[in-house]
Amino acid sequence: MTETPQTEAVQNWLAKLETALGRGDVQAAVDLFGDDCYWRDLVSLTWNITTSEGRQQIADMLAATLAGAKPSNLKIDGEANETDGVVDAWFTFETAAGRGKGLVRLIDGKGWTMMTSLQELKGHELPQGTHRPSGVEHGAFRDRKTWAEARQDELKGLGYETQPYCVIIGGGQGGIALGARLRLLGVPTIIVEKNERPGDSWRKRYKSLCLHDPVWYDHLPYIPFPEHWPVFSPKDKLGDWLEMYTRVMELDYWTKSEAKSARYDEAKGEWEIVVDRDGEEVVLRPKQMVLATGMSGVPNVPDIPGQDVFKGEQQHSSQHPGPDAYAGKKVVVVGSNNSAHDICAALWESGVDVTMVQRSSTHVVKSNTLMELALGALYSEEAVKNGITTDKADLIFASIPYKVLPAIQKAQADETKRRDKDFYDRLEKAGFDVDFGDDETGLFMKYLRRGSGYYIDVGASELVAKGDIKLAKGQVVRLTEDSVVLDDGSELPADLVVYATGYGSMNGWAAKIISQEVADKVGKCWGLGSDTTKDPGPWEGELRNMWKPTQQEALWFHGGNLHQSRHYSQFLSLQIKARMEGIDTPVYGLPEVHHLQ
Amino acid sequence: MTETPQTEAVQNWLAKLETALGRGDVQAAVDLFGDDCYWRDLVSLTWNITTSEGRQQIADMLAATLAGAKPSNLKIDGEANETDGVVDAWFTFETAAGRGKGLVRLIDGKGWTMMTSLQELKGHELPQGTHRPSGVEHGAFRDRKTWAEARQDELKGLGYETQPYCVIIGGGQGGIALGARLRLLGVPTIIVEKNERPGDSWRKRYKSLCLHDPVWYDHLPYIPFPEHWPVFSPKDKLGDWLEMYTRVMELDYWTKSEAKSARYDEAKGEWEIVVDRDGEEVVLRPKQMVLATGMSGVPNVPDIPGQDVFKGEQQHSSQHPGPDAYAGKKVVVVGSNNSAHDICAALWESGVDVTMVQRSSTHVVKSNTLMELALGALYSEEAVKNGITTDKADLIFASIPYKVLPAIQKAQADETKRRDKDFYDRLEKAGFDVDFGDDETGLFMKYLRRGSGYYIDVGASELVAKGDIKLAKGQVVRLTEDSVVLDDGSELPADLVVYATGYGSMNGWAAKIISQEVADKVGKCWGLGSDTTKDPGPWEGELRNMWKPTQQEALWFHGGNLHQSRHYSQFLSLQIKARMEGIDTPVYGLPEVHHLQ
Repeated sequence: MTETPQTEAVQNWLAKLETALGRGDVQAAVDLFGDDCYWRDLVSLTWNITTSEGRQQIADMLAATLAGAKPSNLKIDGEANETDGVVDAWFTFETAAGRGKGLVRLIDGKGWTMMTSLQELKGHELPQGTHRPSGVEHGAFRDRKTWAEARQDELKGLGYETQPYCVIIGGGQGGIALGARLRLLGVPTIIVEKNERPGDSWRKRYKSLCLHDPVWYDHLPYIPFPEHWPVFSPKDKLGDWLEMYTRVMELDYWTKSEAKSARYDEAKGEWEIVVDRDGEEVVLRPKQMVLATGMSGVPNVPDIPGQDVFKGEQQHSSQHPGPDAYAGKKVVVVGSNNSAHDICAALWESGVDVTMVQRSSTHVVKSNTLMELALGALYSEEAVKNGITTDKADLIFASIPYKVLPAIQKAQADETKRRDKDFYDRLEKAGFDVDFGDDETGLFMKYLRRGSGYYIDVGASELVAKGDIKLAKGQVVRLTEDSVVLDDGSELPADLVVYATGYGSMNGWAAKIISQEVADKVGKCWGLGSDTTKDPGPWEGELRNMWKPTQQEALWFHGGNLHQSRHYSQFLSLQIKARMEGIDTPVYGLPEVHHLQ
Repeated sequence: MTETPQTEAVQNWLAKLETALGRGDVQAAVDLFGDDCYWRDLVSLTWNITTSEGRQQIADMLAATLAGAKPSNLKIDGEANETDGVVDAWFTFETAAGRGKGLVRLIDGKGWTMMTSLQELKGHELPQGTHRPSGVEHGAFRDRKTWAEARQDELKGLGYETQPYCVIIGGGQGGIALGARLRLLGVPTIIVEKNERPGDSWRKRYKSLCLHDPVWYDHLPYIPFPEHWPVFSPKDKLGDWLEMYTRVMELDYWTKSEAKSARYDEAKGEWEIVVDRDGEEVVLRPKQMVLATGMSGVPNVPDIPGQDVFKGEQQHSSQHPGPDAYAGKKVVVVGSNNSAHDICAALWESGVDVTMVQRSSTHVVKSNTLMELALGALYSEEAVKNGITTDKADLIFASIPYKVLPAIQKAQADETKRRDKDFYDRLEKAGFDVDFGDDETGLFMKYLRRGSGYYIDVGASELVAKGDIKLAKGQVVRLTEDSVVLDDGSELPADLVVYATGYGSMNGWAAKIISQEVADKVGKCWGLGSDTTKDPGPWEGELRNMWKPTQQEALWFHGGNLHQSRHYSQFLSLQIKARMEGIDTPVYGLPEVHHLQ
């Protein structure tokens, strides 16, 4: 078979890199890269999630990791492609501990972006396909234990007679996805969840909620949604899916359970977690603890004078039960992001007199536009037809360095502005302040930098434009017995005030469960250090503390949307499994802490 | 692109056939077939499941159906293959009502086997892929109904305020698979199941049971088992899967419910089914009723003198709770097929003194041999790698006329005998009578002809060979107070007698629920009319009454293993949907009834 010139170019480039890496010749390796270059590693070389930017950082990373990681056997996987002068290709490789998959992009024959990811640990491959279990032990044995008996023993004994290696606090999509990965890797794990049933974290949200991300972006590992699944999952339907998933993946999922406290015993190298399991106190002693309590962290409830004299109801958006009880009443919703919009729209649909208080400008993007421009190439029916499986899409997504992302996002945002000009004009005419972020880069950068400040429009913006959802602007200065008073002196009568005022950083959970000291030690979670609103510098180049080692040994943070819960649970699970198996995992590039929250 | 000569040959052949069919020129059409030829149609031309054998039968079928079905647009799908002089190719086609998929095999340029199958009805395509629902109605609407509310309304109202179009009696794998298909086709359906939970029909069987068929053969429609699913599902694990499947497919599944009686009202064209729903009497009035109570029909319990004087326990195999209560006791199992072997082995594993009574010879085949020789090409990890999806495998399987099957099966059986000669020698040495069927064709023909007479060995045969399971041979003539007496006068002491004596024909369920008259009108179910043991002639060429119209209007039988439940539910669901939509469905070739049971 003859190869294309592009494929040949990548093969040659990989061969040279392999030789250089094999010899430990860092200089020869970095000479293969251009001036503008990036190497993002997902736990294959660094036992960390890191992006090395520029030749010097790449050299530092390789110098520190080559001897231990021993990358080898770099082989192009399929043909290379060329788009606008950028040649890209998939490749596979090995390390001392595992097998990996990478994606490289060359410009003028020099490396521009390199992504390496650990896919499996040698000797600990997933029991899938040809490795799947038999299910039955053929033959006849006295005192055979059936699957049901073994499962029952595990459900009864784990956490009592035997200790789990890992405990995940929080059983939403993040805890469930990670739990499934650990299950298949054979890591004994207990998931601690306060709700009655898996999926309740969705079920208990406001009743009209549907996912704002489309189905192709939302799959869980191992059991994808079927082909007839709706584009936007209704929350209760998603709840049912999570519940069945938890069951058939055989997760050890403790419902009605809450971690009351946790303490790391340095000497023993294990956690002591006190769990209230439906009224019973159980002490768990795992080697690893994951906080998967939601990337949104602890709810922010603002402290406003007069909250004690207000005679109506006050709720954080996370506590809002939906509109049913409020028909005919007056509701003021403080905030103008996703939750505020969804809650306002549902209230309006139920005939409630509802006012949204916009305190600062908001990024709004129509759901269809976002799906088409931002996700369409990777996560859509079209992408599926083009052979872009979910795994491939995730890795392509992950292969773009965070430094490079804003330029790509800005082009999408510019196209969004053009395409939906009328829509934005109508919103502004109604007095609603729209922004596209500090540097006009739109939704996804806001999500990565601060996890807030936007609304994906599924209908509420039209109500705002038409004045059906009333709009007020300014800061809330106080509450009276029956109203909300803004800084311009205006008074909004209210039977209910909903604080759609967001959430703190995830390390707030560490403060709550472990201690303020440990929370401060690990520092702020999420955000890239972009030095934009709510994402202070210095530049980190990765999401802080997410899915990777933190300054607190054996403490991990896991969270994000369904996409992130799916994709990054892979790397977190491999890090935990490697530790359980006693594989050497020297962490390269653990960042300093710059912000406490 | 240049085509292979084989592909060109099939294209030409299909073009000629299309022309002939389009002109209604039956003679020209059958002239394209060889002397030895078959056309198996799965409801695309005949609204029936029929095999026309030879040119005359094909001519008769085409003459009767062409004007209504209007087959057209026959297009080869992919490239043709040639194996041992047989050229085969997939093709697509249309009819007046739908779109179909076919598989044709040519020998010397003439048609040998032709399979046509209906895949979808025009205007009633499945809501999948690009047709999937949105899940959310973007925009804001007063009194919007959420998914959860709509689902709740349906669960409460169906069968009370509104009538289902279809009722399925029996919620095992058959009822569930068919229910899922009807759900996606938008046919309001209630499944009536006597057990507490979906999956209980498996859970309640003996505790060591695992499926004897491998995972690739067992998928349900729409949600395949994940890649880590065991090769042989343990029964409780399968039960959990069925339960979650029923839930996420949103089936209207009535548990703790039993059909007490059913009566067809010819004038109204509907059934009146009296259901005991957990103590409440509900009358359902669907247009269609499906008996999916298991292909095995009503349990056969033999009538033996002394059953009234025996002081121990007596059970049919379907009632056997597993070995736990019988350690240290003496058990006699009457019968030597699958259930008998599994029950004996589980009893031996629990330290029970167990004797198997072999009344007639049994076909035994080792599970691994069967998997490799009989299923490997279509249902295995290897097949998946070769691009043979489950759908493709099912259609390939279905494309082989039942008349042709014995020769293929005999070759496999011969190879089995060679390969496992030592095994069979050991069994015979232990006194166990092994057969390979009247014509030495092995397991699958026994399954299709009589649904009994075999054991797929997963370990019990070794116990028989070693004498751990004691073997007795002969007919049971009577029971004493504490023993089973055989026709040679030998006496087997027993605390428990298990009758692993099989089941009657499925029309026994019609007798139980509807009337003996209707059961006799539809006649025996299952079996091909092969004129071999327990499958009396005349030759039918298809399984009697299964998944196709019967002599009783609006009454259908559905059952079989997981493979058949999956594949044939497609054709049964399309037949029911077509009737609901008022599509003309003239049935060709409804067979006469020759046997009452």
